[in-house]
Amino acid sequence: MNNSVVTIYKIGGGIIDDAAELSQFLELLAQTAGLKILVHGGGKGASTMMRELGLTPQLINGRRVTDAATLDIVTMFYAGKTNKQVVAELQRCGVNALGLSGADGNVIRGVKRPVKDIDYGYVGDLEPASVNAGLLQQLLSAGLLPVLCPIIHDGQGQLLNTNADTIASAVAVALAGAYTVKLHYCFEKNGVLRDVADEQSVIPQIDAASYADLKQQGIIADGMLPKLENAFAALQQGVSEVIIGHARNVGNSLHTVLCLK
Amino acid sequence: MNNSVVTIYKIGGGIIDDAAELSQFLELLAQTAGLKILVHGGGKGASTMMRELGLTPQLINGRRVTDAATLDIVTMFYAGKTNKQVVAELQRCGVNALGLSGADGNVIRGVKRPVKDIDYGYVGDLEPASVNAGLLQQLLSAGLLPVLCPIIHDGQGQLLNTNADTIASAVAVALAGAYTVKLHYCFEKNGVLRDVADEQSVIPQIDAASYADLKQQGIIADGMLPKLENAFAALQQGVSEVIIGHARNVGNSLHTVLCLK
Repeated sequence: MNNSVVTIYKIGGGIIDDAAELSQFLELLAQTAGLKILVHGGGKGASTMMRELGLTPQLINGRRVTDAATLDIVTMFYAGKTNKQVVAELQRCGVNALGLSGADGNVIRGVKRPVKDIDYGYVGDLEPASVNAGLLQQLLSAGLLPVLCPIIHDGQGQLLNTNADTIASAVAVALAGAYTVKLHYCFEKNGVLRDVADEQSVIPQIDAASYADLKQQGIIADGMLPKLENAFAALQQGVSEVIIGHARNVGNSLHTVLCLK
Repeated sequence: MNNSVVTIYKIGGGIIDDAAELSQFLELLAQTAGLKILVHGGGKGASTMMRELGLTPQLINGRRVTDAATLDIVTMFYAGKTNKQVVAELQRCGVNALGLSGADGNVIRGVKRPVKDIDYGYVGDLEPASVNAGLLQQLLSAGLLPVLCPIIHDGQGQLLNTNADTIASAVAVALAGAYTVKLHYCFEKNGVLRDVADEQSVIPQIDAASYADLKQQGIIADGMLPKLENAFAALQQGVSEVIIGHARNVGNSLHTVLCLK
């Protein structure tokens, strides 16, 4: 590990679907110092277009069932429209962004999810070993900001739909051998809240010990639980810190920092 | 100029729209030696989807009039679906391809075409100076095969629709200072034909002198004329040779080679 810090930012559909929010976030991102990678999710555009084309989007447990027609549409939206709009806006902000699907430069290769109870279709699973960390290092060294969309490939010519959270954590872990890695999840709240109804009740820092306490007290529950479990899994695999906060607070200190100790 | 040769291949809509033809071409491309860049056009998919969405594609002199809704669709098709399918197929063939729009890495920056008689909308004009040759050199040096789609940007956050032939020749000219550049146009004929009805009548080589003769004799006329004018313009700007032939003959010698002398 060297002393260089790289921060992996992840933005989800809520920001993608709000042009003003997205622009504001990208401007803030452009003002932050240091090496960066941006991972973006999908948003509602793909489902809207599917309905306009007479197709029926199907989600199970929040995961999109991806038949061939759906894969075409999500590839067009995520790797085409969203990825290129984000890249063009970052260029406007003076940031030399470069958009990538997992197929590009073989940067993320995954496997089609095996059919157990549910056939998700062309959905890909990946792990940190699926990430071409060497190429990301070359791009970062060349002064570029890689922008990753949630479409990967299997190396056999098949594109696969996947999940931006999973990509962000896999990339973070894969780069942890070469950099001090921070993983910054942007979402619609100011951080992990002591009281879900109070946006001012952000817990500034959580380590492994206080996390166990917060779980036991029931302060962390429901939707935050899987998010934080994944965050601590990334920390255990070498990521230095995980940051959870609102996209509009990127660059300031209103967020929750998770670390092992 | 150094001794390294780079070949810029351009494929058009005819190949993009024929999955078997496209696969065959990409396999042949994978077997050719040397540094390569691939530029692809659009195909009919974008117009088909526009009609399915109740939009009316509008073309003037073969150029697409590109309003905001059309730009979204062509960006999705060219930079999303087509570009990523081509990249994934090249990866299957063992080629480390990396897809780019002009916005990615600021690789091609253009200007929105000024409105004279016709308002083409979000259509971009570019020239060799618009090309970030340094980034293409870095990618080639890293063992990557850049795959360019005909979407560029203006540096102010606006994506622009453009033409793959123009991109191919601008990239070829831009790289002519750093490499020996060959520009290979793949189209639906075996080359420049002495008799348009006879695919076996390919003229193997045309130089500036014989080109003047062929024009005078009326053997080169109609659709071939602007193609060859553009080819000779590229040669005059430092490209070493321009090759015109069928996609399925990439790697063999059935084609027309254009050179200055």
